[in-house]
Amino acid sequence: MRRIIVDAMGGDHGPGVVVAGALQAAKEYGVAVTLVSESDAVDSELSRHSYDTAAVSVVTAASSIDMHDSPSRALKQKDSSMRIAFDRLKAGEGDALVSAGNSGAMMAIGMFVLGRLPGVDRPAILTVTPSVSGGTVLLDGGANTECKARQLVQFAHMGAIYADKILGIATPRVGVLSNGEEDGKGNELTREAIHELRSTDLNFMGHVEGRDITNGRVNVVVCDGFTGNVALKTMEGLGQFVSSVLKGAFRSSLLSRLGYLLCRGAIGRAYDRLDYAHYGGAPLIGLNGVAIVAHGGSSAKAIKNAVRVAAEAVSQDINGYIVNALGKRDA
Amino acid sequence: MRRIIVDAMGGDHGPGVVVAGALQAAKEYGVAVTLVSESDAVDSELSRHSYDTAAVSVVTAASSIDMHDSPSRALKQKDSSMRIAFDRLKAGEGDALVSAGNSGAMMAIGMFVLGRLPGVDRPAILTVTPSVSGGTVLLDGGANTECKARQLVQFAHMGAIYADKILGIATPRVGVLSNGEEDGKGNELTREAIHELRSTDLNFMGHVEGRDITNGRVNVVVCDGFTGNVALKTMEGLGQFVSSVLKGAFRSSLLSRLGYLLCRGAIGRAYDRLDYAHYGGAPLIGLNGVAIVAHGGSSAKAIKNAVRVAAEAVSQDINGYIVNALGKRDA
Repeated sequence: MRRIIVDAMGGDHGPGVVVAGALQAAKEYGVAVTLVSESDAVDSELSRHSYDTAAVSVVTAASSIDMHDSPSRALKQKDSSMRIAFDRLKAGEGDALVSAGNSGAMMAIGMFVLGRLPGVDRPAILTVTPSVSGGTVLLDGGANTECKARQLVQFAHMGAIYADKILGIATPRVGVLSNGEEDGKGNELTREAIHELRSTDLNFMGHVEGRDITNGRVNVVVCDGFTGNVALKTMEGLGQFVSSVLKGAFRSSLLSRLGYLLCRGAIGRAYDRLDYAHYGGAPLIGLNGVAIVAHGGSSAKAIKNAVRVAAEAVSQDINGYIVNALGKRDA
Repeated sequence: MRRIIVDAMGGDHGPGVVVAGALQAAKEYGVAVTLVSESDAVDSELSRHSYDTAAVSVVTAASSIDMHDSPSRALKQKDSSMRIAFDRLKAGEGDALVSAGNSGAMMAIGMFVLGRLPGVDRPAILTVTPSVSGGTVLLDGGANTECKARQLVQFAHMGAIYADKILGIATPRVGVLSNGEEDGKGNELTREAIHELRSTDLNFMGHVEGRDITNGRVNVVVCDGFTGNVALKTMEGLGQFVSSVLKGAFRSSLLSRLGYLLCRGAIGRAYDRLDYAHYGGAPLIGLNGVAIVAHGGSSAKAIKNAVRVAAEAVSQDINGYIVNALGKRDA
């Protein structure tokens, strides 16, 4: 049985949703979970649920990382729930780790405790965004503000392996995010990355544009963490805006309220297709271990899916494939 | 009466929608329009409409710029409808110019024919995106792939003047687009720009994130053209994806079809709030003249609004304010 270590203190909604999501995952996917709690914070949450006590254990930490803590400050806090979670993973007391906490802190602690895989210069935040074709892998989502071309090449390999093994997309199409497809578009970084990517065995499409993140043209989009973060947060903002405008529209009259009641089921299914929670969090890909960061605003469902993805990344031996693709280049 | 010169050959849908939009603008806003047509392309379109012949004139060009033509190639094509439109504007035969053509070609020809305003290093593509607060000005939308900090400062001044005079937002809030708000976020460019912007008289908010483009936190977002283009096209792609998923949902059953009929009016008003066409195209701000690029996929309504915005930019003397804010710095 796989054991997933869950930092119960991450997330904007407190340990309640994290515990609920972790217990659901234990039940649905047959995994064991270790909840890392700041003192007795999870105890009252656990008491609200019935669960298989053999599959759920609790480890106590003395503190937790705040969403506003800097990575360097987080690194110094050796008794935080996030740090204890990584220490336990490193000690082999679990197969993978999930946290809905501060992603910068998580990357810093992950690098310190686990280190990186051979052949990977810097781990990246890998995000799966909804798209016409089911989901698009985007990386880096924000770990590395500035990147070199060889890092984008590594991102491309890691993203392609993830798309294949986790999303089930054989020979995924890979593109470099840019301001246009034509010759002469892109910046120095993207043009150099494209030059290098053309000589790999990836199914490489060259420069792609922002709209290609969702339109299904490619399955993997690579970029530096500055650009990736802007793209992801722009999508998040627009999604929330569209959702609030539509909600207002449905509430605007008696007739529209009635109409909404009739198509509520269909709209709910549409929202599911557009919901990032479905894709279950963002791996810190390239770390020497499996660590998944769930969105700070994660619902119990998002936590549950993050635990599922963590277990799958272990079963599918994602990191083995990455070492196989990248580790030998350095050798 | 203001006269707006309209390149009738721009746009993905051919001269039909451009002519229809220009004629609607002439009627609704009391402006005169000069349509620049490749040979007799607009004649059959004009014959479909009744209009005030005193307010509409036609100028003939020998060719037109293709959406795929490079800026350098477009510059050489001296008999294109776009070039003739700029030449006529330069000659004082109109007050402003609208084209739904190739924006790169338009910037190159605009720079060659009109030049830039004093104090402006490089003109930018200014886009108004829908937002919670009505609309957010974003620049540069793609004209300048790589920028210096002083250009971002100029973009901030131009964007703030536009937000004030055209969108009616007094003392607009201005931010620099980045991968986070915290200290240590941003790249070299954004950090230097922030340092310089803090000593201006703008209502400056520092670093902002992608979600702030739509959530109303700021009214003006500045960035280099690479980042701006990625953000805008990411929004465009997500908008199309969401719209297609919702359309599919409404069509998915008899019940949902009926529900849609009942709330169709409310949904239509919601889509209007989310529709870029409402904001009427993107000025090439910083050119020594008023030139508006309408989206290649523009509807007649989008062309009409671009003509309205062109006339307003002239009436409000946007360029006079820009020279006042920036031109004296160089003197």
